[in-house]
Amino acid sequence: MEKTMLTGDRPTGKLHVGHYVGSLRRRVELQESGGFDDIFIMIADAQALTDNADNPEKVRQNIIEVALDYLACGLDPEKSTLFIQSQVPELCELSFYYMNLVTVSRLQRNPTVKSEIQMRNFEASIPVGFFTYPISQAADITAFKATTVPVGEDQLPMLEQTKEIVRKFNSVYGDTLVEPEILLPDNQACMRLPGTDGKAKMSKSLNNCIYLSEEPEEIKQKVFSMFTDPTHIRIEDPGKLEGNTVFTYLDAFCRPEYFPEFLPDYTDLEELKAHYKRGGLGDMKVKRFLNAVLQAELEPIRKRRKEYQKDIPYVYEILRKGSEKAEKRAAETLQDVKAAMKINYFDDAELISSQTERFRNQ
Amino acid sequence: MEKTMLTGDRPTGKLHVGHYVGSLRRRVELQESGGFDDIFIMIADAQALTDNADNPEKVRQNIIEVALDYLACGLDPEKSTLFIQSQVPELCELSFYYMNLVTVSRLQRNPTVKSEIQMRNFEASIPVGFFTYPISQAADITAFKATTVPVGEDQLPMLEQTKEIVRKFNSVYGDTLVEPEILLPDNQACMRLPGTDGKAKMSKSLNNCIYLSEEPEEIKQKVFSMFTDPTHIRIEDPGKLEGNTVFTYLDAFCRPEYFPEFLPDYTDLEELKAHYKRGGLGDMKVKRFLNAVLQAELEPIRKRRKEYQKDIPYVYEILRKGSEKAEKRAAETLQDVKAAMKINYFDDAELISSQTERFRNQ
Repeated sequence: MEKTMLTGDRPTGKLHVGHYVGSLRRRVELQESGGFDDIFIMIADAQALTDNADNPEKVRQNIIEVALDYLACGLDPEKSTLFIQSQVPELCELSFYYMNLVTVSRLQRNPTVKSEIQMRNFEASIPVGFFTYPISQAADITAFKATTVPVGEDQLPMLEQTKEIVRKFNSVYGDTLVEPEILLPDNQACMRLPGTDGKAKMSKSLNNCIYLSEEPEEIKQKVFSMFTDPTHIRIEDPGKLEGNTVFTYLDAFCRPEYFPEFLPDYTDLEELKAHYKRGGLGDMKVKRFLNAVLQAELEPIRKRRKEYQKDIPYVYEILRKGSEKAEKRAAETLQDVKAAMKINYFDDAELISSQTERFRNQ
Repeated sequence: MEKTMLTGDRPTGKLHVGHYVGSLRRRVELQESGGFDDIFIMIADAQALTDNADNPEKVRQNIIEVALDYLACGLDPEKSTLFIQSQVPELCELSFYYMNLVTVSRLQRNPTVKSEIQMRNFEASIPVGFFTYPISQAADITAFKATTVPVGEDQLPMLEQTKEIVRKFNSVYGDTLVEPEILLPDNQACMRLPGTDGKAKMSKSLNNCIYLSEEPEEIKQKVFSMFTDPTHIRIEDPGKLEGNTVFTYLDAFCRPEYFPEFLPDYTDLEELKAHYKRGGLGDMKVKRFLNAVLQAELEPIRKRRKEYQKDIPYVYEILRKGSEKAEKRAAETLQDVKAAMKINYFDDAELISSQTERFRNQ
């Protein structure tokens, strides 16, 4: 069977290092692995509008930021189809019909939706579009007959909903849709990179994220002000690694080759950690090392981004072409779906002839 | 301002005399009045699927029945655009975006939805598509920029929901959509024609409806077995008109010219009613009169239906052409909607040039 991957991001801001280690880096690896016949990467503007309907400009402005971040990280339009969700109207039509296959109480039980509702303080005023987005997500996944959806464990209930819709559709209307599999991250440590202040949530308003497009001086400043171990006061004190953001970032970013290059006194991260734990290693030394690592990791990304920034019409052209390809694929699936539901009346010669026959005998 | 009417029916069965006096007859009058620039009559198959997802064949088979009933009643494809909802995919897209403008609790408060949920014994297992159908209905109405929606009073909450969506959309994204007005029936008596057994609900399973396609003998049989006044035992007994189905049907169907033709002993319906009330008028005499009236009313409809039944491909062709016209109109509205939301990125030269400018200065 063909292997098709679908994934994407909501364009509500520039992407940051959390997105990079949590998903983008892996996406590029999977792209380069050659293990997929097709890769679709969706900029989920329509989904972002479900809880930003009052502020469409924010979504609109951030599409290009996300596209630039994608290209900067190494997503290659020759290998991965980058597209904008709203430019594939077939997704709305699929959502519309899938809505008949899911009950309201089933949606209410979705733990991801539950916790996101809580996170957004929606309470009684949840927009219907937001409430139903697991169905819309099922449309996104099935439209491309995706076999593989690389997401975090927190997205398991969403994928379960998609599988339920696929099974229900296939059982009612006949085998049509493909059941996707989740591809969990191989490195759990990378999944939820904390903010530079140690807080779990990275956000623009907290000014605790390092963006992929960040300039070297800003990166350095953010690393140097990073949260470490507040009980590690003097250099000779023993230090803790748990909740120590600098070490969490090293876990996510450090590669063996950075030691000879930037910190030749240590052979690897384990040795560095051991020294920190027993005392005698100052925070600043570790921060300088992390800064060197991050600069080395982010420099090629930033440079590629600047290249693409010089030709914005070309980036929109990439998205336009990708959206066209995505729409073509989704239209094929929609045609299958409508044929299975037998609501393609005008293409259905058998329907017209059987009805003619029926009325002849009346 | 242009006057545009939108209305329609769910294709879940043949249409009956209740549909005729409740809406179809008026539709034809409005069509002939020349008071509308455009009339769209929708066969709401997609809406019917919201609570018939398991039985798409029922919906599929009944589209042609409803179309035949429309044409039989005098809806004229030259004057009214007859179309099938599912063949206008723009309606799904509009629904999708309107869902962001309505809260879940607002839908839960909709009295029409509440009572329909009760009627269908859905309780906890309401399909999401059914729960959200007021939003889909708003899409149907606004897609054609309908100014006039001729429906019963029970549909007022649905229309109110549409108006709210229009106001919200226009206030967030700028003046785009048209607020529709309800056109209530002029004759309240006709709005809820009871079944022939006197029950409020007409249904195939109760065998208490007279279909528009019914043969003369069946009409007669159903009229003769109609529910009247159970306390009116002997002819000389006084009779009650309230809840007397025969008189309700006469209220709905009788015209002055039928008296000289079929019941010359009486000058009008008031005189007939007065005689029944004071006693001395037998049920059978009234039933024979009602039968004559109904036969006179339904004969031309049935004849026209039989003519159309001879050429089913032509009826599908009418629907195909109507659906094409409807789609064209809906696509125009959708284009306006997307332009207002500014999600027509690739057509938006200003967006691309302003983004180019923005990144030049970075």
